[in-house]
Amino acid sequence: MPQSQDSNRRFVLASRPSGAPTADNFRLEQADIPEPADGEVLLRTVYLSLDPYMRGRMSEGPSYAEPVAVDDVMCGGTVCRVVESRNEHFSEGDWVLAYTGWQDYAVSNGNGLMNLGASPRNPSYALGVLGMPGFTAYMGLLDIGEPGEGETLVVAAATGPVGATVGQIGGIKGCRVVGVAGGEEKCRYAVEELGFDACIDHYADDFADQLAAACPDGIDVYYENVGGKVFDGVLPLLNTFARIPLCGLVSQYNATSLPEGPDRLGLLMGQVLIKRLKIQGFIIGDYEKRFGEFFPQMSEWVADGRIQYREEIVDGLEKAPEAFIGLLQGENFGKLVIRVGDDG
Amino acid sequence: MPQSQDSNRRFVLASRPSGAPTADNFRLEQADIPEPADGEVLLRTVYLSLDPYMRGRMSEGPSYAEPVAVDDVMCGGTVCRVVESRNEHFSEGDWVLAYTGWQDYAVSNGNGLMNLGASPRNPSYALGVLGMPGFTAYMGLLDIGEPGEGETLVVAAATGPVGATVGQIGGIKGCRVVGVAGGEEKCRYAVEELGFDACIDHYADDFADQLAAACPDGIDVYYENVGGKVFDGVLPLLNTFARIPLCGLVSQYNATSLPEGPDRLGLLMGQVLIKRLKIQGFIIGDYEKRFGEFFPQMSEWVADGRIQYREEIVDGLEKAPEAFIGLLQGENFGKLVIRVGDDG
Repeated sequence: MPQSQDSNRRFVLASRPSGAPTADNFRLEQADIPEPADGEVLLRTVYLSLDPYMRGRMSEGPSYAEPVAVDDVMCGGTVCRVVESRNEHFSEGDWVLAYTGWQDYAVSNGNGLMNLGASPRNPSYALGVLGMPGFTAYMGLLDIGEPGEGETLVVAAATGPVGATVGQIGGIKGCRVVGVAGGEEKCRYAVEELGFDACIDHYADDFADQLAAACPDGIDVYYENVGGKVFDGVLPLLNTFARIPLCGLVSQYNATSLPEGPDRLGLLMGQVLIKRLKIQGFIIGDYEKRFGEFFPQMSEWVADGRIQYREEIVDGLEKAPEAFIGLLQGENFGKLVIRVGDDG
Repeated sequence: MPQSQDSNRRFVLASRPSGAPTADNFRLEQADIPEPADGEVLLRTVYLSLDPYMRGRMSEGPSYAEPVAVDDVMCGGTVCRVVESRNEHFSEGDWVLAYTGWQDYAVSNGNGLMNLGASPRNPSYALGVLGMPGFTAYMGLLDIGEPGEGETLVVAAATGPVGATVGQIGGIKGCRVVGVAGGEEKCRYAVEELGFDACIDHYADDFADQLAAACPDGIDVYYENVGGKVFDGVLPLLNTFARIPLCGLVSQYNATSLPEGPDRLGLLMGQVLIKRLKIQGFIIGDYEKRFGEFFPQMSEWVADGRIQYREEIVDGLEKAPEAFIGLLQGENFGKLVIRVGDDG
């Protein structure tokens, strides 16, 4: 059932997951297409971004953002076209970056929309390398990680939209770049296409040994977005004064209880002391005011081919739950985007 | 047996402790008084500083400094007088801040000595509020903690030489200052003499509840130097963007194995992410170049009475092992200093 001009398909949160989400946690509904009031625009979704942070929004409990309410539309960044405009800043046919979630249509008063113009070159890039994931890579690495020439940078989820960008920026800054990814194909891509110096398969039995061998001078910056076993391998290799920008822990998102002991909290704090580490969490919203610094720089790097970018585009809104569940298990290869409607 | 002019008493590391040190780990020896060569000075120890970091130097294994070798003299900061000078920068009778360890006499070529002149006002303060502990308090709080007016600062070991100074600087900077200390007497001292807004006894059964009640607006800066149960109480109270300068974990120093599970390493990393915390380790040696900024400021605060300072002076080098063992159990009250010899 494709996008129609008569009704609005939307996925709502049917129930909160316990552990990994399942298809039952989502419910597809049909609704009327909303009518824009004076000052509003009607938006038709072309691309929907799927990102690991959405797992957090499905749960209750304190986090850096409000959870999605049960029966509400699942949240998400989108690239849309303006179908009807009653707002002077937008014209019919404009492409916009929006946050309208898992549905075909939405109205907006224009707040928070970014107008991409009438014919952007790669409109979906605004969900990836030129948008939130790219900006997350850029600010976390440069503002917290402060990579220096000749230092060793390790980045997990190396072929994901954040990790791939982190590693390539590290290369531009003169770092030795070591990626961690799931499977040989992704690792080969990181080295051959993204220019990483090495990439280690975290499924390998001797993962920690391979990582150590790939980092003969230790690790100066570890860009953390997965946690778990990868962090365990990184921790003993960190150099004095290493920096750890932390923007995600995707390996932990589905956990329902703490792992078994021993309790390594004090061990970690001891390492922070002995090695004078800096561990700092951030979310990209904290850096909103610096988007104007990021966007032209990254646009230039992408245009020059210094930053490569790979998307995995899945056709059809109805595929969103399945694709999202796979994303949390590392099944995607590149930035996962749902093509919700016609991009012509 | 007091300090003599004929022989050099010295404590050497007899064996490495397993867990808490005991008297058996130290051995008192008699040696000849060394002879200064050309360019050297002979120093007589007046005051010896005892500090928690020394526990780390008694163990092998990676840390931020080399361990003391078995049969070597125990390390430590000292305030000495120059007995004989063959170095043009020092005169007989000068007071100097040195690092000559647990012994009566030592020779030095002058490197690393700080000349305190012929008649300093409070020479032992160079081991405390005007020396390494005060400098540690100052740089960790101001450079990493970045306390803001109206923010809540929590500091453990609140009556120790670092904690007491941290809290009082926080007060000068306009923070609500909440201390943690062991026992009612220390807590009363922190509030009544040091001017803390509150101080919680970590021996109390309802310690975590009392700490929460004392921090109604959460915690913005936690100056960490103990770890363990105090950190467990602090963690849930941390505000978004809280900063944790970390310069010690005295509660962990005697541990011989990791505590039982569950494993909270991932929990801590999750909190760093959700609350965008900054946790940063440091040792004061990293800030050596900024001593010239610290010393005049702190001297002024001490002279003005804005920073109060308390010492616990124990007479006799032979008491050093017992006093040090007590220090690790929190038995001292104020900066622990051994008066090794005549201060006239």
